[in-house]
Amino acid sequence: MPGPRSVEHLKQCFARLPGIGPKTAERLSYFLLRADQALAFELADAIRTARASTLVCSVCFNLDEVDPCSICADPRRDHAMVLVVEDPRDVAAFDATGYRGLYHVLQGRVSAIEGIAPEDLTAAQLFARARSGTVREVCLATNPDLEGEATARMLAERLAEQPGLVVSRLARGIPAGSNITQVSQSILADAVEGRRVLRGDA
Amino acid sequence: MPGPRSVEHLKQCFARLPGIGPKTAERLSYFLLRADQALAFELADAIRTARASTLVCSVCFNLDEVDPCSICADPRRDHAMVLVVEDPRDVAAFDATGYRGLYHVLQGRVSAIEGIAPEDLTAAQLFARARSGTVREVCLATNPDLEGEATARMLAERLAEQPGLVVSRLARGIPAGSNITQVSQSILADAVEGRRVLRGDA
Repeated sequence: MPGPRSVEHLKQCFARLPGIGPKTAERLSYFLLRADQALAFELADAIRTARASTLVCSVCFNLDEVDPCSICADPRRDHAMVLVVEDPRDVAAFDATGYRGLYHVLQGRVSAIEGIAPEDLTAAQLFARARSGTVREVCLATNPDLEGEATARMLAERLAEQPGLVVSRLARGIPAGSNITQVSQSILADAVEGRRVLRGDA
Repeated sequence: MPGPRSVEHLKQCFARLPGIGPKTAERLSYFLLRADQALAFELADAIRTARASTLVCSVCFNLDEVDPCSICADPRRDHAMVLVVEDPRDVAAFDATGYRGLYHVLQGRVSAIEGIAPEDLTAAQLFARARSGTVREVCLATNPDLEGEATARMLAERLAEQPGLVVSRLARGIPAGSNITQVSQSILADAVEGRRVLRGDA
């Protein structure tokens, strides 16, 4: 007997989550069976509540409990600046740095391997925002990897058609707190190429 | 803003599970927000149902939806044979091999580091079962590691007081399907020491 039926079903549900294999699904299931019942029920309710109360913002495609999201609706933010990110998690990461412009969540990146085209992303809505006249600068903050770079290049080309719009890309260089002898060659090459003049004319 | 409040709460709930760090908790949470709502709700219900319907068997301490569990209540099983395991997951593992005796789930192992004494386990209930007269053999199937071995030794000492009871331990040796050049020295030493005579007298 492979364990009570309700436990087998719970294992199957956990195993559908990304990065959760059958062994982890089993470990999580048995943990919840022996844990405080209140803890297990709180997780169940948190899943229901989060899933039921979360909306996708119709302006920037960030996740929030209101639409437009609390960022797009905040008049104290700079509505002329839009940071384009791949994922809603990136919004939280940039916002923690003190950035106070708006965002545009692409909901992914262009990927030939996974068959993700610009039409599968929210690129058309980004172009519409860029044309609206309120946006002064679009900063492309896709990941500094092959697919993120390809996505940024593709977006930059289309955004260049908009007269007067500033299109920028995140700086690349040595990461704060790193050790120069330990970072990769391509990071150092980026850092030299993107060097900033501190004094005098380059 | 660190994401909607309901999402933050979901992340906190996931992060309480063993082996789930803050990044994994975030990944799981955002997956559930974008996944099919039915999938998210099914997980929430599966947690509730499994937690609410699972009992600990009062005889062997296995988890099931009935008490005594379906194994202890099965008359076709050998009720004179008891396999002692650390965890309910081990019951499922041994049962998949075709073993048809009973079990006794210790709910852990003796550990000096974690401060787990025999009184924290179901050892007293095992001794009572051994004294009941229906048990012919107790096979100690704790893990073949330091703490599992110490637990087995401790249980074997106490079980030896019961006249006529056979106390056994799982065989140690080379694991089926392994490669001799790749297994550790201690596995090979176990395999030589526990070698079985195929022909002739050793």
